[in-house]
Amino acid sequence: MIRLAIVGPGLLGGSIALSARRSGGFHIGLWARRAEAVAEIETLGIADQASIDLEEIVKDADLIVLCIPIGAMPVIARRIAEVISPEAIVTDVGSVKACVVAELEPIFRGRGRFAGSHPMAGSEQAGVRAARADLFDGAVCIVTPSERSDAQAMEEIRSFWQKLGCRVTELSPAAHDEIVAQISHFPHLLAAALVQCVADENPRALDFSGPGFRDMTRVAGGPPAMWAEILRSNRHAVRKSAEAMIEKLRGIVTLLDREEPMIEFLTQAQARRDRLRLPKNTDV
Amino acid sequence: MIRLAIVGPGLLGGSIALSARRSGGFHIGLWARRAEAVAEIETLGIADQASIDLEEIVKDADLIVLCIPIGAMPVIARRIAEVISPEAIVTDVGSVKACVVAELEPIFRGRGRFAGSHPMAGSEQAGVRAARADLFDGAVCIVTPSERSDAQAMEEIRSFWQKLGCRVTELSPAAHDEIVAQISHFPHLLAAALVQCVADENPRALDFSGPGFRDMTRVAGGPPAMWAEILRSNRHAVRKSAEAMIEKLRGIVTLLDREEPMIEFLTQAQARRDRLRLPKNTDV
Repeated sequence: MIRLAIVGPGLLGGSIALSARRSGGFHIGLWARRAEAVAEIETLGIADQASIDLEEIVKDADLIVLCIPIGAMPVIARRIAEVISPEAIVTDVGSVKACVVAELEPIFRGRGRFAGSHPMAGSEQAGVRAARADLFDGAVCIVTPSERSDAQAMEEIRSFWQKLGCRVTELSPAAHDEIVAQISHFPHLLAAALVQCVADENPRALDFSGPGFRDMTRVAGGPPAMWAEILRSNRHAVRKSAEAMIEKLRGIVTLLDREEPMIEFLTQAQARRDRLRLPKNTDV
Repeated sequence: MIRLAIVGPGLLGGSIALSARRSGGFHIGLWARRAEAVAEIETLGIADQASIDLEEIVKDADLIVLCIPIGAMPVIARRIAEVISPEAIVTDVGSVKACVVAELEPIFRGRGRFAGSHPMAGSEQAGVRAARADLFDGAVCIVTPSERSDAQAMEEIRSFWQKLGCRVTELSPAAHDEIVAQISHFPHLLAAALVQCVADENPRALDFSGPGFRDMTRVAGGPPAMWAEILRSNRHAVRKSAEAMIEKLRGIVTLLDREEPMIEFLTQAQARRDRLRLPKNTDV
């Protein structure tokens, strides 16, 4: 029986609880800041133990998963580091890794074994009521060891995400942030920009949108404050992606009345996009 | 019994046949250029009559729907105009309307009653084997009368699309093209550009993409030659959208380290995007 402590009861924290229960072999504790959230967790019956007392949830845990906003992590991590065993394994689910690892690693040095994780699952829904046991099934989880990470702790973190259904892969925190800027953070901003462009120019146009537009802008429904924090934390890589897109659009505009090069461009994009259908990055 | 002639057996032509059969009250003829396509239509059993002989399919039709590429329309339209009754109603399903209406209206003057349509349904799949009876259920269909359009023909065209499950609305050909550039043509190009940006900079990043990226780039799987033609036919409006996006991205980059304005931007995008969930443009 692994004693699992989930710190933060949002969509990801709740889904980890449900998925760990489905997997079996876990005692599941869930910390929430607000008593109302604890009551909701108890009503939904998604954890073995729920409390607003952080120490009570984490002190005997084997594995602690931080599911709170990036900005809140250092303060909470310091409180956790004071009470856990130095053998306890700590990870997080933050969408940005370089800053999180740089801040949390020193806090846990000699007081717990920390390494970052980023399960790439979620939805435009937020909150524990949107939690699902199958949220991680087939999702990529990127674990981001640093040079200082404990090898055995890394193995256990990988094994944990695999039990939850993830396909686990590994990147350095910096490589993670660059890649995730390209495939998640900048695309989020682009989806929001697309909605705004149309609404600014011709709000009536939105009323005519079909399934393509809806799919393209779905992620723009995500929680604004959380995303603003992610974008700020990874702003250098996101800026680079935005600048690459500006250049790309400038080039494409010149292809609009040149049929052959445009067909070539769209054919290449189609082929590259088709590769997404069969993910090749599983190592489970 | 309405004698319906569908000219072109692709995803849209095939889905119109299936949907009209589901609705009932139609005799369905389907023209295809190739004998193999006719054989396939006969095997699939999706029409009452299928032929490579255009005259045979259209000559006694009450309603003719052109489901062929925009560039092929004038030549086919001239052949149709020679053999149909002046009372026959002709429409098309092209994604661009100003150029189609300008080219086809003179061809049918006094020889048929033409007005353009654009059922906003489809998928990244192509071909008759992807056809579905429910493709149009709840889809917006924009009909685009000109000043010369016959009022009774317009009523019958609207009624036809409603029978197929569409929510029918009306725009001038020029207003159609501007709106559709914003919500469909430019977004298509943007999805392709996003795939290309990531693949150019860091092909490995595509292997880490999750459901958000997959949804955002889904339309980039559409047929390249068809889309190149659409983009060229509507290039002025698409260029305008691309330039608006370039300006928008330039502005957004300055918000990356300014949390409050970024939250405001994302909150507004989220609210505007949420409006899409309950379409307000139905007039059926």
